[in-house]
Amino acid sequence: MRTLITTVPFGEIDRAPRELLSEAGVDFDVNPTGRRLTENELTDLVAEYDVLVAGTEPISRLVLDNAPRLKLISRVGIGLDSVDLLEARKRNISVSYTPDAPSPAVAELTIGLMLTLLRKISISNSQLHQGVWRRYFGKRLSESVVGVIGVGRIGKRVISLLKGFNCMEILVNDLAPSDLGGAAAECQWVEKERIYREADIITLHVPLTGETKNMIRGEHLEMMKSGALLINTARGGIINEDDLYMTMLKGHLGGAAIDVFETEPYFGPLVEVDHCVLTAHMGSMTEDCRTRMEIEATEEVVRFISGQPLQNTVPEAEYEIQSGRLLLRGQEIQ
Amino acid sequence: MRTLITTVPFGEIDRAPRELLSEAGVDFDVNPTGRRLTENELTDLVAEYDVLVAGTEPISRLVLDNAPRLKLISRVGIGLDSVDLLEARKRNISVSYTPDAPSPAVAELTIGLMLTLLRKISISNSQLHQGVWRRYFGKRLSESVVGVIGVGRIGKRVISLLKGFNCMEILVNDLAPSDLGGAAAECQWVEKERIYREADIITLHVPLTGETKNMIRGEHLEMMKSGALLINTARGGIINEDDLYMTMLKGHLGGAAIDVFETEPYFGPLVEVDHCVLTAHMGSMTEDCRTRMEIEATEEVVRFISGQPLQNTVPEAEYEIQSGRLLLRGQEIQ
Repeated sequence: MRTLITTVPFGEIDRAPRELLSEAGVDFDVNPTGRRLTENELTDLVAEYDVLVAGTEPISRLVLDNAPRLKLISRVGIGLDSVDLLEARKRNISVSYTPDAPSPAVAELTIGLMLTLLRKISISNSQLHQGVWRRYFGKRLSESVVGVIGVGRIGKRVISLLKGFNCMEILVNDLAPSDLGGAAAECQWVEKERIYREADIITLHVPLTGETKNMIRGEHLEMMKSGALLINTARGGIINEDDLYMTMLKGHLGGAAIDVFETEPYFGPLVEVDHCVLTAHMGSMTEDCRTRMEIEATEEVVRFISGQPLQNTVPEAEYEIQSGRLLLRGQEIQ
Repeated sequence: MRTLITTVPFGEIDRAPRELLSEAGVDFDVNPTGRRLTENELTDLVAEYDVLVAGTEPISRLVLDNAPRLKLISRVGIGLDSVDLLEARKRNISVSYTPDAPSPAVAELTIGLMLTLLRKISISNSQLHQGVWRRYFGKRLSESVVGVIGVGRIGKRVISLLKGFNCMEILVNDLAPSDLGGAAAECQWVEKERIYREADIITLHVPLTGETKNMIRGEHLEMMKSGALLINTARGGIINEDDLYMTMLKGHLGGAAIDVFETEPYFGPLVEVDHCVLTAHMGSMTEDCRTRMEIEATEEVVRFISGQPLQNTVPEAEYEIQSGRLLLRGQEIQ
């Protein structure tokens, strides 16, 4: 069985994932481009392989149509918007992922972006490097009302870190009123519109689905306080990028921090907006979390190839989300 | 009695401090330059005034020699390195300050700078704004050994915030082995040299004194790990700026974040170093803390003018620090 590793980087920080594969006798190739593959590139490469260790490149129907041998997609990461789960299931391709590994890194980056925006760190830094000394007033996290949309693994961790700062109030919402256990237990569940209107900082931790695509458009941005700060470390496409650009151009919003984009690498118009902090999809990019993700994904490959049961297959709910309807557990997906 | 307000900004975010003075019938003027006064400018202005509401401009012997009417210096802030306390005492000038107000804002900025450095937020942001998409690996705060030098009001608050991140280890040191109460209680007291050698992140929260001036020179920077991150939100001059520049130019240290400089505004060579994050002395610059500092400082003026006792006079220890020797409490300072 042959394995193609498309995720980039792979085994750079820690060689353990490569060694795991070698020791188990897995025959593997690594993405030759060193960057995220396009749909066409992946289509051209995929035919020979039984297993993909996947990044966020599109694993679409077209790709799957050209992957007659494929039996396992092992995603390095949590988001599944890049994988056509329903088409994979039709072809009896198993899909597993690493939902827990990236959470701590994404949550810490999110807090870092909040403080960067609140204290205008990146603006002052850019100015000083250009020879301009200007002191800006900021606001403290403890004086802020924070709205968290999405209270799954990552949202809950963000809330847990926020509690260390004694935020004034944390308002939460998710796609469906959900279990508010863990750190989110004492937070106030409110409608999204109330978060848009009342929060000083809004941070997104929902997956990209049919329901969340373009969830935040111009009309929602307009509802926000003129000085509100908006953070997206979840997935590109949840905030409409054109609307965000137009809104910030008009001087609405105090700032935004965007780590994820509809098309990556991103070279769109937000690069013109000084108070829009941009990072290159680095949410999960810490040494420890990246290594853990790669190890978990390759362990799954080793299990599969040696005939052991998979441990991190994607739960039924993810298929239901992609089918766009709530199905009863176990009901066949057409 | 006439009052000169030299601190900049003043009463901008919240007019309350101005109103406090007006309601109490205090006759006051505001720094006409809108920026920090130089020693000469202050010398020229000071003669007519009985009270100064002071920023960080130098209140030196020269200034005091030209201030025959001066009876109170009310500092907006905590640092006293700008005030010649011993010369003030010789002239029977009272000095008060606002030691508690800035702490929460400085501590939050410090955590923000740690995360900015750890996750290369400002580097990625600058590059994306210049059309370069490059993903960087970072490190998590929870995977880091943090060294805190100075565990007074601000250092203790930094430690308290760090605990929310479950840092691997927090090493602490101060000018003298001190009370490690509060958040610092469970931290490990070590020699400064051990912090230099072992910490992934080093943050300074000591005052600027004869003892801390140039405390961190080239030889200490060389002791640090090649990827260590160094943060100074305390006072300029504690780290030797030329040595820091030379060390970083050689590729040693993973990054630095400097909010305070020997000469401010700062236009020195660190502006050339991309992985040196620079901010314009904004530690205390949050709306709530700044307002609290201004109100506390003006309340002190109102007390003084109306003959009530001062509440926030500088403690004896600060005079002892400036005299460069440990004096017995109450002993006359020459």
